[in-house]
Amino acid sequence: MPTETPQPAFVLVNPQMGENIGAAARAMWNFGLDRIRLVAPRDGWPNQSAVAMATGAGRLLDEAQVMQTTAEAVADCTFVMATTARNRDLTKPIYAPEQAMKIAHERIAKGEKVAILFGPERAGLENPDIALANAIISVPVNPKFASLNLAQCVLLTAYEWQRHAVEITQETVELAGGQWATQTEVQKLSDHYEERMETAGFFFPEHKADSMKLNLRNLWSRMPLTQADVRMLHGVMRQMVRWKERGD
Amino acid sequence: MPTETPQPAFVLVNPQMGENIGAAARAMWNFGLDRIRLVAPRDGWPNQSAVAMATGAGRLLDEAQVMQTTAEAVADCTFVMATTARNRDLTKPIYAPEQAMKIAHERIAKGEKVAILFGPERAGLENPDIALANAIISVPVNPKFASLNLAQCVLLTAYEWQRHAVEITQETVELAGGQWATQTEVQKLSDHYEERMETAGFFFPEHKADSMKLNLRNLWSRMPLTQADVRMLHGVMRQMVRWKERGD
Repeated sequence: MPTETPQPAFVLVNPQMGENIGAAARAMWNFGLDRIRLVAPRDGWPNQSAVAMATGAGRLLDEAQVMQTTAEAVADCTFVMATTARNRDLTKPIYAPEQAMKIAHERIAKGEKVAILFGPERAGLENPDIALANAIISVPVNPKFASLNLAQCVLLTAYEWQRHAVEITQETVELAGGQWATQTEVQKLSDHYEERMETAGFFFPEHKADSMKLNLRNLWSRMPLTQADVRMLHGVMRQMVRWKERGD
Repeated sequence: MPTETPQPAFVLVNPQMGENIGAAARAMWNFGLDRIRLVAPRDGWPNQSAVAMATGAGRLLDEAQVMQTTAEAVADCTFVMATTARNRDLTKPIYAPEQAMKIAHERIAKGEKVAILFGPERAGLENPDIALANAIISVPVNPKFASLNLAQCVLLTAYEWQRHAVEITQETVELAGGQWATQTEVQKLSDHYEERMETAGFFFPEHKADSMKLNLRNLWSRMPLTQADVRMLHGVMRQMVRWKERGD
């Protein structure tokens, strides 16, 4: 059984080597974290190399949730942060692990569900995964030498979670009786707009279509949207379609 | 040549596997630390496995000082801290890495020489080594699962050194060459949407129109919009209008 303590889910996206999944599990459990989600692990699941490496933290692997897509893995979350070393030219808040885990504590204390995305060993997260995130976590490594592996990145993040565990700030955000939108809700909003704008011929010229779509998706994922906001934005788009169809 | 920045020496006492010495060097250099001292490495020195593992941080090994005893390795230091997981029943201050590295910074800033001792992989430091230390560093791991290896312990300590070295900005938002939208720009966006939604018959029934308009205005004003976001959102609306007017 997982521990009762509310905590972020650590999502390993397309992890390659089983050994690294096992090492990540150990790194997490060192700091009391035990919720792993795996997105399409390269060598399938369960994985014997992962189990062999995870000695003492094997329970985390038994209880790991395995999903096929990153979107699915964060569907129930209201706040997602993506770890990345590279400069992405994305307009999202970038936090050091320290600030990131402080924010995670604050949001989780308010009942939110938080996920942290970790990319595959060699390449790191891809842009469509990053587009799902509300913010970026970047470890301030030596600019001349950045060689953190997956388990080390997990270790530092888990360490910072634990370091802040004692000092949870109770801050209230007024939601005017509303709720933050979940990732699924924001995704559906993204899908809705993308689909309609596709029909309306917005993504033009064609060679720019993919980056325009990514920009639009990033725009929604970066906004602090409530469920009421999401309903309103769906309504705006639906009304434009009705207006066109009415043809008056 | 080592970096000029004054910094603590990391002393690996009786390290066993060359791979772990290499991994420790990499962990240090990730956070800009490059002073290694080795006390009687089990497999002698130089060590090819260490070099192979240290890719990119090999210089640290070339420049490592090798000593026969821990006493010799800390002889020139004024303050020594020993990392240990176990409770030693010693009357010494015990610090988490955070406090320890804060102290290291303070002392080094005053011109002191500081060393941090790390024990051999399996057994950790022996009591005579600990006796040389002025204080203990203990990583606050999960009491049910403490499995930090040598390189991980080095990593967390180096991370904390670096965390106190750099003034970490509270939050950086990368604007990808862009700028935050001004209030005027957000207002114009609000006006644009309101006008179009009015035409499209969105604000209905009439007795709810005012509060719906207010909600839509609040939505935009609450979002952290860049100028690029604003352009994109104008574009979305314009395209819907074009699509309608085309009437296809």
